[in-house]
Amino acid sequence: MDATLKIGGSLAEEPARLRALCRELSEMARNHRITAVPGGGRFADVVRELDERFHLQNTVAHNMAILAMDQYGIFLSSITPGSRTTCTLDEARQHSEAGLIPIFLPSRLMSQADPLPHSWEVTSDSITAYIAGELRSEKLVLVTDVDGIYTADPKDNPAAELIQEISVADLSTLDARTSVDRYLSEIIAKARLDCYVVNGRYPERVRAILKNELPRCTRIRA
Amino acid sequence: MDATLKIGGSLAEEPARLRALCRELSEMARNHRITAVPGGGRFADVVRELDERFHLQNTVAHNMAILAMDQYGIFLSSITPGSRTTCTLDEARQHSEAGLIPIFLPSRLMSQADPLPHSWEVTSDSITAYIAGELRSEKLVLVTDVDGIYTADPKDNPAAELIQEISVADLSTLDARTSVDRYLSEIIAKARLDCYVVNGRYPERVRAILKNELPRCTRIRA
Repeated sequence: MDATLKIGGSLAEEPARLRALCRELSEMARNHRITAVPGGGRFADVVRELDERFHLQNTVAHNMAILAMDQYGIFLSSITPGSRTTCTLDEARQHSEAGLIPIFLPSRLMSQADPLPHSWEVTSDSITAYIAGELRSEKLVLVTDVDGIYTADPKDNPAAELIQEISVADLSTLDARTSVDRYLSEIIAKARLDCYVVNGRYPERVRAILKNELPRCTRIRA
Repeated sequence: MDATLKIGGSLAEEPARLRALCRELSEMARNHRITAVPGGGRFADVVRELDERFHLQNTVAHNMAILAMDQYGIFLSSITPGSRTTCTLDEARQHSEAGLIPIFLPSRLMSQADPLPHSWEVTSDSITAYIAGELRSEKLVLVTDVDGIYTADPKDNPAAELIQEISVADLSTLDARTSVDRYLSEIIAKARLDCYVVNGRYPERVRAILKNELPRCTRIRA
């Protein structure tokens, strides 16, 4: 697999831009073998709310959060031409070989393999990284609604600067609340993934990464 | 089956009351063969929001809304002692025979049988009525966060009165926006279900219905 891309849930807040991204992904799938993995979006927010109010068991919250990714994946597939939802690694490989874009619904694989801790430190970032590893992806691309990882939260701090490149060791000690989950660095290190965090509101940046260029984004070195 | 009960998603807004209801349901399952079917709750609201913003195909929205019921069902099971999630009618019968409370996750059955129109006129009310029919339930109980069906919306109109009993024919012509979905009357009539709309914030009312008493609620005559 050339790349496994997480399509962040927050991108659904801007329909026109998300549709443009999904159209672009279909185009990219003609020249690159790629697999898309959905974020959890507002479905995962509902799980968080229920967890806050009911103090769910970790495993229950974990499984519900993964089902939230299935939900968002079904939605993404409905707006992505040439996409196919799939639950298996083999089928993902077949679809991407055929120039289609598989959208991976992770709940079945995650309940069978159960490879990650059941906690909120594991979100769709880590789950996508795990799938990228299983698919032997050359690249892991976390497509989100910000330009990458910043030195501080850019919404609160106008002095925050985009980190263009960071080692996985530095990422794991980074104190600032970043746009990626806390468990990600462990999987990137283990699977030796070449990882990028990029703003999906600018599809050309995603395309540039697939073409081995380095657009505005954060690159995480394994 | 003595009764199939829909547990409305809005009940999750009051954790202590929902927990009390779920504990009561476990108690009731010792003396009555009952099956619970989840509403969609805030998960279904997220589907509605996506539908409004992206104008989804009806079938996509329908399938996502049903998956929202699975989500809420997994949650309900985690707070209901002696409950078991299930996807099949046979297993639901077995669990309820054993004094357990099956929580029916409808996505598999609904995708296989696909018996209902794909529109927002079909919600978890109609889906629960369909399952009640398949289980040959004596009663269908829609457990919600209001006392029953009113002559007008009681939140807007202080003169609104609770309808204690209504025929299914009258329900289908009722103009007021009611607390049940628009397709329900068709299924109730077809399956000749004895149907109740009751406030789950008062579990004793649910228990009364199972004991063939008539508490404060709306009864719909098939």
